[in-house]
Amino acid sequence: MKRLMITGFAPFGGDKINPSWEAVSRLPDRIGGYEVFKCLIPVEFGHAGEIALEKAEVFQPDVILCIGQAGGRAAVTPEMLAVNLRYASIPDNAGQSPEDTPVVPGGDNALFATVPVRRMASAIREAGLPGTVSLSAGAYVCNDLLYTMLYSFRGTNVRCGFIHLPYLPEQAGDRYPSLPLESMIEALKAAILALD
Amino acid sequence: MKRLMITGFAPFGGDKINPSWEAVSRLPDRIGGYEVFKCLIPVEFGHAGEIALEKAEVFQPDVILCIGQAGGRAAVTPEMLAVNLRYASIPDNAGQSPEDTPVVPGGDNALFATVPVRRMASAIREAGLPGTVSLSAGAYVCNDLLYTMLYSFRGTNVRCGFIHLPYLPEQAGDRYPSLPLESMIEALKAAILALD
Amino acid sequence: MKRLMITGFAPFGGDKINPSWEAVSRLPDRIGGYEVFKCLIPVEFGHAGEIALEKAEVFQPDVILCIGQAGGRAAVTPEMLAVNLRYASIPDNAGQSPEDTPVVPGGDNALFATVPVRRMASAIREAGLPGTVSLSAGAYVCNDLLYTMLYSFRGTNVRCGFIHLPYLPEQAGDRYPSLPLESMIEALKAAILALD
Amino acid sequence: MKRLMITGFAPFGGDKINPSWEAVSRLPDRIGGYEVFKCLIPVEFGHAGEIALEKAEVFQPDVILCIGQAGGRAAVTPEMLAVNLRYASIPDNAGQSPEDTPVVPGGDNALFATVPVRRMASAIREAGLPGTVSLSAGAYVCNDLLYTMLYSFRGTNVRCGFIHLPYLPEQAGDRYPSLPLESMIEALKAAILALD
Repeated sequence: MKRLMITGFAPFGGDKINPSWEAVSRLPDRIGGYEVFKCLIPVEFGHAGEIALEKAEVFQPDVILCIGQAGGRAAVTPEMLAVNLRYASIPDNAGQSPEDTPVVPGGDNALFATVPVRRMASAIREAGLPGTVSLSAGAYVCNDLLYTMLYSFRGTNVRCGFIHLPYLPEQAGDRYPSLPLESMIEALKAAILALD
Repeated sequence: MKRLMITGFAPFGGDKINPSWEAVSRLPDRIGGYEVFKCLIPVEFGHAGEIALEKAEVFQPDVILCIGQAGGRAAVTPEMLAVNLRYASIPDNAGQSPEDTPVVPGGDNALFATVPVRRMASAIREAGLPGTVSLSAGAYVCNDLLYTMLYSFRGTNVRCGFIHLPYLPEQAGDRYPSLPLESMIEALKAAILALD
Repeated sequence: MKRLMITGFAPFGGDKINPSWEAVSRLPDRIGGYEVFKCLIPVEFGHAGEIALEKAEVFQPDVILCIGQAGGRAAVTPEMLAVNLRYASIPDNAGQSPEDTPVVPGGDNALFATVPVRRMASAIREAGLPGTVSLSAGAYVCNDLLYTMLYSFRGTNVRCGFIHLPYLPEQAGDRYPSLPLESMIEALKAAILALD
Repeated sequence: MKRLMITGFAPFGGDKINPSWEAVSRLPDRIGGYEVFKCLIPVEFGHAGEIALEKAEVFQPDVILCIGQAGGRAAVTPEMLAVNLRYASIPDNAGQSPEDTPVVPGGDNALFATVPVRRMASAIREAGLPGTVSLSAGAYVCNDLLYTMLYSFRGTNVRCGFIHLPYLPEQAGDRYPSLPLESMIEALKAAILALD
């Protein structure tokens, strides 16, 4: 049985919940051929990646899938790549506001996800759920975490990816798209089953 | 046991499915204290209301709830009112394109829904689904049907309402919000349970 | 020369500016065949209409055009009608939060604008600007004002209408559509020239 | 006097106009300290960059600024980077539909724009227009062109950037944000004046 480490984020930016951890924490412990290890990650540049790497040291995963919130998006969006860039329009939970600094000084400008992004998005849609590939994970802590994972596990057999979730209905108010929690959970399961 | 007639629309405007009938046709035959009668309504000004009135003659419902598609909306939206206005930016399925003509010549400018619209939207949200009250059912066949029902059953005990659904994920493409079919069905159930 | 009274609103809901008054206050004093009288209206249910009626008593306008902000809309939107309904999701500037109370007890459920709404929207588009007809002015103070004007001048020769404006770019942040101030001013001029 | 080459695209995907060329072709021949050379580029993977490079051979520009259409966006968006990826959800004007192939085999995964992207976006906002930085130029011909320019002029003094424009009002219909042509022209001027 293969080992999947899946991460969710704590709330940030004034929100009281983060759909990523709400969904991740409710996943079953086995999905398809994967044993599932869940961990909660702080919304802090740098520290997010450190915690994830510590957990990976313990779990020894075959695949690392990080999940985050992208308020305003209308679909579950597997990310194609991470960029070597940090920029915060609001401070992270440690009060950091980097402005166009690199995640890894001297690292590649961008790293492509090593999970099958197109197939994961297709699998989400085939489950009757909204799923599209995204070409930008932003420059906030989500991107920071994905870049750090891809950089740290480059040249290894550990595959890394990221999936952004829309708002939950309770966060969305009148103006933003949202997706029910149950649908998010189903979308993540579909994406995991498409890993291989 | 009370009697609920619930209607869904046929596809229109180039779409191959209409989420309203997809969801309505999958509802159970009993929901709370209601026996549920489902019927499919054509997307045709005038004819929509005629068919619904014929069905109501047969079913003798206590409540008539009409369901329609509002592509681009991000939530399930119970409608507060219908206006005495027909306007088509695309022809209906009979080729009609009225331009600011009345539904009922001499009728009230608008009629308020006689179901508990705010309570229905709250119930949808309490079920973890996106639900907001809408103040406009448009001026297309959806509004035509709601106006016709409210006008025909004014001064009676038959209560009438309308709920618009977002696109299904398969209709939404990259740019529009959508809601999975299962969530639409749950939202309709929640709204029906809030009727009284 | 005919007389046009045009109103804009004060800021509300935490915003520091209201595009309606920003645009209205910059209009010239003559537009086509109209002498233009501008007035600033408070964002308060009831009081908005009272102030507008006092001003109309002084200006003796042939046409009253009220302008308001509809944050989130992507176009300049002449309103087709007002409904006899007050509902506030945020308190008005006097702290009032009505919940589904009428503007005028016993008044018509809705009143149609008495300016040429479709023609105004077309004129805006012909000027190369985004303009579409709206079927709902909401249930907040904008609708309150339009309903009050239409109700007060029903059966007279005074024609009344309402146009909603999008956010200004400085209000819109990353997620909302907006329109530059100069374009708003041009859109209002185009709509006024389409009055007759 | 410095030399600016600015490019716009031909229409594609069923549209009859492309706001990028509409705006570019109407720019003056001098803006600030720049002599402005305009050229029209085909919407074809590969060929777009070839034509631009031929023109640059002739114009010998100090700065190359490419402009494109991003239908659905609400602001004028200077692009932060280009990715080494081609993907077409609709065929280009030569019928090509690449699926996750590189722009330059063996090239960097991404290249950062060499114009002052944040300053350009600020300048657009200071002009009262909607301007935000974008972290993705997509994977269609716009990105293809920007990547090709950045790759071809890496290690030289020629700086390269890309700005995406929203729809024009006539393209936007009811559902999409748009910006008037005059505002696009003003936004491009503001961005050019912010180059240095």
